[in-house]
Amino acid sequence: MEKYIKDPLYGNIRIDPNMIDTPYFQRLRHIMQNGMAYMVFPSMRHSRFEHSLGVYHIASKMIDRIRTENLTIKLESDWKDKIKKLALYHDLGHLPFSHTFEYAFEVLQYLNPNIYNQILNFTGFKAKLFKLHEMIGVTLLKEMGEKKLSDLMQEIYKKDEPDDEFKKIVKLIINSDLDADRLDYLQRDSYYSGAKFGIIDPERIIVTMNITPDGYIFPPKAIDDLEHFFLARFHMYSSVYNHPVIEIYNRVMAYFIAFALDSSLLKFPDNFEEFKTFTDESVFLALVKAKNDPNLFHFYHSLVERKKYKRAVIEGGQAQDLLKAISNHKEEFYKTILDYKGKVVIGEVELTTNIDKIKIERKMGIWTYTKDLKDEEGVTKPKERHRIYIGAYDDESSNKITEHFKKEYNVIIQFRS
Amino acid sequence: MEKYIKDPLYGNIRIDPNMIDTPYFQRLRHIMQNGMAYMVFPSMRHSRFEHSLGVYHIASKMIDRIRTENLTIKLESDWKDKIKKLALYHDLGHLPFSHTFEYAFEVLQYLNPNIYNQILNFTGFKAKLFKLHEMIGVTLLKEMGEKKLSDLMQEIYKKDEPDDEFKKIVKLIINSDLDADRLDYLQRDSYYSGAKFGIIDPERIIVTMNITPDGYIFPPKAIDDLEHFFLARFHMYSSVYNHPVIEIYNRVMAYFIAFALDSSLLKFPDNFEEFKTFTDESVFLALVKAKNDPNLFHFYHSLVERKKYKRAVIEGGQAQDLLKAISNHKEEFYKTILDYKGKVVIGEVELTTNIDKIKIERKMGIWTYTKDLKDEEGVTKPKERHRIYIGAYDDESSNKITEHFKKEYNVIIQFRS
Amino acid sequence: MEKYIKDPLYGNIRIDPNMIDTPYFQRLRHIMQNGMAYMVFPSMRHSRFEHSLGVYHIASKMIDRIRTENLTIKLESDWKDKIKKLALYHDLGHLPFSHTFEYAFEVLQYLNPNIYNQILNFTGFKAKLFKLHEMIGVTLLKEMGEKKLSDLMQEIYKKDEPDDEFKKIVKLIINSDLDADRLDYLQRDSYYSGAKFGIIDPERIIVTMNITPDGYIFPPKAIDDLEHFFLARFHMYSSVYNHPVIEIYNRVMAYFIAFALDSSLLKFPDNFEEFKTFTDESVFLALVKAKNDPNLFHFYHSLVERKKYKRAVIEGGQAQDLLKAISNHKEEFYKTILDYKGKVVIGEVELTTNIDKIKIERKMGIWTYTKDLKDEEGVTKPKERHRIYIGAYDDESSNKITEHFKKEYNVIIQFRS
Amino acid sequence: MEKYIKDPLYGNIRIDPNMIDTPYFQRLRHIMQNGMAYMVFPSMRHSRFEHSLGVYHIASKMIDRIRTENLTIKLESDWKDKIKKLALYHDLGHLPFSHTFEYAFEVLQYLNPNIYNQILNFTGFKAKLFKLHEMIGVTLLKEMGEKKLSDLMQEIYKKDEPDDEFKKIVKLIINSDLDADRLDYLQRDSYYSGAKFGIIDPERIIVTMNITPDGYIFPPKAIDDLEHFFLARFHMYSSVYNHPVIEIYNRVMAYFIAFALDSSLLKFPDNFEEFKTFTDESVFLALVKAKNDPNLFHFYHSLVERKKYKRAVIEGGQAQDLLKAISNHKEEFYKTILDYKGKVVIGEVELTTNIDKIKIERKMGIWTYTKDLKDEEGVTKPKERHRIYIGAYDDESSNKITEHFKKEYNVIIQFRS
Repeated sequence: MEKYIKDPLYGNIRIDPNMIDTPYFQRLRHIMQNGMAYMVFPSMRHSRFEHSLGVYHIASKMIDRIRTENLTIKLESDWKDKIKKLALYHDLGHLPFSHTFEYAFEVLQYLNPNIYNQILNFTGFKAKLFKLHEMIGVTLLKEMGEKKLSDLMQEIYKKDEPDDEFKKIVKLIINSDLDADRLDYLQRDSYYSGAKFGIIDPERIIVTMNITPDGYIFPPKAIDDLEHFFLARFHMYSSVYNHPVIEIYNRVMAYFIAFALDSSLLKFPDNFEEFKTFTDESVFLALVKAKNDPNLFHFYHSLVERKKYKRAVIEGGQAQDLLKAISNHKEEFYKTILDYKGKVVIGEVELTTNIDKIKIERKMGIWTYTKDLKDEEGVTKPKERHRIYIGAYDDESSNKITEHFKKEYNVIIQFRS
Repeated sequence: MEKYIKDPLYGNIRIDPNMIDTPYFQRLRHIMQNGMAYMVFPSMRHSRFEHSLGVYHIASKMIDRIRTENLTIKLESDWKDKIKKLALYHDLGHLPFSHTFEYAFEVLQYLNPNIYNQILNFTGFKAKLFKLHEMIGVTLLKEMGEKKLSDLMQEIYKKDEPDDEFKKIVKLIINSDLDADRLDYLQRDSYYSGAKFGIIDPERIIVTMNITPDGYIFPPKAIDDLEHFFLARFHMYSSVYNHPVIEIYNRVMAYFIAFALDSSLLKFPDNFEEFKTFTDESVFLALVKAKNDPNLFHFYHSLVERKKYKRAVIEGGQAQDLLKAISNHKEEFYKTILDYKGKVVIGEVELTTNIDKIKIERKMGIWTYTKDLKDEEGVTKPKERHRIYIGAYDDESSNKITEHFKKEYNVIIQFRS
Repeated sequence: MEKYIKDPLYGNIRIDPNMIDTPYFQRLRHIMQNGMAYMVFPSMRHSRFEHSLGVYHIASKMIDRIRTENLTIKLESDWKDKIKKLALYHDLGHLPFSHTFEYAFEVLQYLNPNIYNQILNFTGFKAKLFKLHEMIGVTLLKEMGEKKLSDLMQEIYKKDEPDDEFKKIVKLIINSDLDADRLDYLQRDSYYSGAKFGIIDPERIIVTMNITPDGYIFPPKAIDDLEHFFLARFHMYSSVYNHPVIEIYNRVMAYFIAFALDSSLLKFPDNFEEFKTFTDESVFLALVKAKNDPNLFHFYHSLVERKKYKRAVIEGGQAQDLLKAISNHKEEFYKTILDYKGKVVIGEVELTTNIDKIKIERKMGIWTYTKDLKDEEGVTKPKERHRIYIGAYDDESSNKITEHFKKEYNVIIQFRS
Repeated sequence: MEKYIKDPLYGNIRIDPNMIDTPYFQRLRHIMQNGMAYMVFPSMRHSRFEHSLGVYHIASKMIDRIRTENLTIKLESDWKDKIKKLALYHDLGHLPFSHTFEYAFEVLQYLNPNIYNQILNFTGFKAKLFKLHEMIGVTLLKEMGEKKLSDLMQEIYKKDEPDDEFKKIVKLIINSDLDADRLDYLQRDSYYSGAKFGIIDPERIIVTMNITPDGYIFPPKAIDDLEHFFLARFHMYSSVYNHPVIEIYNRVMAYFIAFALDSSLLKFPDNFEEFKTFTDESVFLALVKAKNDPNLFHFYHSLVERKKYKRAVIEGGQAQDLLKAISNHKEEFYKTILDYKGKVVIGEVELTTNIDKIKIERKMGIWTYTKDLKDEEGVTKPKERHRIYIGAYDDESSNKITEHFKKEYNVIIQFRS
């Protein structure tokens, strides 16, 4: 029997409680949706739990927009249930502080390859095929006895296009440039933060869309809504998700997670039973312990007591060049940064916008033709932006890194507090 | 003594009731803010009255952001009152259905030059220096005994830049690319229509702005908010104000007003006493009379009973070329169209975005420098859009105009109902 | 084919455009939902058109809550369509300024019985069986060729309980203490006014309700929502609909309408063809004419130029007693008041709350029982309130009516401006 | 220098960052505002941090409404700063899960008097003079070097009325039936939960209030707003804060905290340095440990994995009688319940409404008089409600407690899952 869960965005979400009253889904209550964003927008404290319910709700509406007339497959209700379930469970594999942990994983590659491999091993994959939380999600679904759903998830998160019609459709709804995920989080993150950038009209987008294996098809009058959607996403990244102060806190947290794992202050789960309680709180506990460790105190100081790092920003062409230089010598770069033990952090931000698999359908005489949205003459795509944020805990660190940038890259960075 | 007026956007607007309890201001309750937009968005029925209160409210907040340190003038409270009063009264000169009447005025130039000149005469100006409602506003203020305010209004609506610091500041607040007018109407029109495009964050824009005689000065972190604002405006025009169906209704209404004045169904006021009750209702009454006039019945049919015109759209490069062709032969063009007596209407839409007098201030070492927002590398400006809408009341009209376009411009237009 | 109409409350309302593109429904765009309320809450300018769409939307959701298991009738989709159509058309018979006209009708009974009878005649009924706009609605539906719908409407608006199951259900949805009408207008009037009193959660009420021929049945957990709903309604009446200043403007308008009909400044339609354009604008036009009529100028002065009447309020027990005294001598009372020709107006307000046909269902052991909500021990019903508002155009009128009240009722009234 | 913090309710809160960048205030980010409410309303995850900023914002507006003309004291800006600071810091002493911990404290009195006394000792008070978090708040302010503010806080939280004018005013703003606390939390908890009950209009209440040492004074037109406010509070308690499922989770959590302290799974801080990191996370960590403790596993099972307790409700007169019976034999009652080790929990809810220190001011002729709002004839006060919730982890517990209630109180309770 379905029941209603109150949601401030959609009023009431109708769902079978059995789908959510499982430990792995309940765990998402303890994974903050936006990492450290609450350090700047205090009320962005919502979790992956509410978001996942929202994605379920949006996906449920999207499945009614699948254009079935040309499908060789028949979309039975069983398949629709699969899509909805995957929407609900797509974030199950997230680690503490969501995407922040992904960066910690990258740091570990250089800081402690053993732990890096232990984590990789946990995912059940031999190599990093897609994002950490996606790999864990796939394996966790298997663990939960959802073998078929796990296969489906793997299929739609891997890079290559799936080869059957059904999976192509699922990929559009769950993992594409206009998926249920984004249609939920833009609004939701706006609602909680108070920033207005992400306020879009998902219902209007949904009622005008047609979902086909080849992509979304929209009428011309939807162009403004689509443009609005992509610009909303761009601004949310530029102003909220990659806000300079948030970006630095996220990096400090990522370094902390890496160093905490390295120094056994934090223990990565050995199995999925332990994974159930590996949450934001686990990391917070490690932070409390760091308070009394002189090598790690600065993490506690910054992340719990909110001591602000000084910060410098490099933007535009200079940032773009520098990003290339760094990515060509990643190992060396990490070595340099790791020396600071988290007292210097560097965040790279590349704001770009992809608009794939979205087509506009027009009539010409008695004929109908479609054109990719990205090729439409009048559509405004936001310009790419490149930024490098450098955070420094104290004067010593900021002086050293300033010298380093001057010497290595001939770039003068300018800190402000 | 000030009192509070409830406003759904700002909660409570604090104002001296004496400023609003005058016939000329009360008249604005009877001028729809967005012309015929309510034919598509039924709840867009708000009037210039609420909007003017909103502009007053926003302008009151903006005057606190005037950067006074470098001013040679001293901004006394008397001056601030002037700015607020002008904000409140800037729309007093609007005629029925707001901007729709402006287009009727243009039509009259060709349909009935005598009435055109009578209206021009009413404005108190010898030639069309700026918009009709602005010219009337200037003269009406004089009529109201507000000689100085009238002069100020004239100064800031004329094309040339005012020459003194104070007027430059007033122009920024009342009549610029980022004035109190726009900061109010984007939100307000979104609120009433239900369209989300115009939801911006005026408070955040206001608290980061500095107003100087040379223009607005913002910190770099405001760039997203500004971009968001200009894109919001662009989308509101593209999707709401210039919505094809609304555009056609607005043109039908403009032609009706012109023909109604021409045929004495509607009488333009002889003086400001008559102007007090020259409102949307006056036009509606004329429409009711048109019901029984076979030459004008189609106006009643369309505007009261909502018989929809068939419509054709020309877009992109083709529209741009056509617009040039037409504007080079305006008189001929109008003659052709006037032959249809409103059974064919043509709307030209050019969506562009100006970003003048807005600067971003940055620090370089100990120095400060500013750069025009429009020259900032990373700023996304929406692409220009060009559209021509053609509406036709019946098959006879649509066939004839289709042939005309084919013959004259070698353009095939395609009607849909 | 259904299409979507944008609504700021519900996002998008899905409806067949043929149902709304008729002159009688389009006419509702020109009938203000809340009479003169916009004189105090400037943005309450929404019309019966948007409201009717909203009632249609709410009723469409309510029909899914009809508990069919015990019904002897079968609710076929044809019947559901009837309910939805009646929801859409329930307000078709409204006259200019909605309820304000009903009071003018009452005044006419004393001022000009001929016109009173002419109007009664127009309704197609021999006596005032229910509200004026309801009677007209019934007859108009017949005129529109909707004979069956007309019968149904008559059945559910008459006082007696209908005798068949289906009609009982329709009456609950369209004309009861918890009908689709109220579920829409409380929210809608809050949204436009900016007053928060009417913000309820109709969706939550709807998803917990069961509709049976005997009334609504709710689970106990809905009690707070229901209480909230009835209190919201009470406060909207107390603070908005019966706001003292609005109440006086509504009475001034009602007297104006009566005097305008009496003096042929305004003409009541002779037939439904004329009814199509008998709207708020018709009354406004009469007001404009009144400007130059010394006997009626005060109406123009008050209603167009917003000259405020002085006002006095009598409340509580004293008001209750006085209301009884007046209603026992209605004819005499009206004669006295009519002498002032609208320079004195009196408004009677009785705020009460009915909670009929709403039951709470509980379990006791294996048994189920229901209890009327109004008999539930813990339910808070707002206290009755009684008020008399007296408005006076000038000192002469206020002095005279003050003396009259002192002499006749031994009541001292105290005017404030 | 002040800066702006984004808040979804108020847009931007202006505050000196030095006041919030202190460990004790940052700690509030880790104390959930509404305990376990998020188990039912998933998005109620906001913390005491945002709420405290909100109370600061509201209090800042309220101080402008202090009626100074009759004050013998002079309200200097230094005093205003004190009020604002106390508003910001009034919740500093909250323990994990806010009010839930208060109940754990009560349980400890019977479960482990040593720890009870240790906690009491921590507060710096010899006896429980007011709420636990208020006592800790007073002492913590001293610890922070805010001796005077600490004294002020103590003065306004103690039962007796303060004796000086200034403190009386502070008490109204910070700790009264209409304080800044409630004006913030009703709206805020509505915003995050999605429940509409608490949506009030604080701005309108604030602009009509006058604050005097004797209480609030309002004009008659504010009665609806005040009534709306008190009813909003009532419904939020009835439907959200004391929602049966939430109530049971809060009790389970309270018992867990008591048992965890008792069994050293959780350690109460020895000093304020440890207090800095004694937060929700500390309790969550203890819960994770409880997973492997057979005596405490049910707490983990319920609070982390969301195993729902069966529940029974007693309401109305029966509940009221029972509550009296229990409170007369509290010790015995607790002993019985403690035997179940948290597998049975009992929640007592008494919903009442106090309306003290609020007066309505009216004019009678040339005189002015005030009357207490609670004595106003027409004011609706919600009826008291009494409820007892009983939660049981498994059949064994529910059977035993059912028998117990039958035997001891002759009351039959009926569990549902």
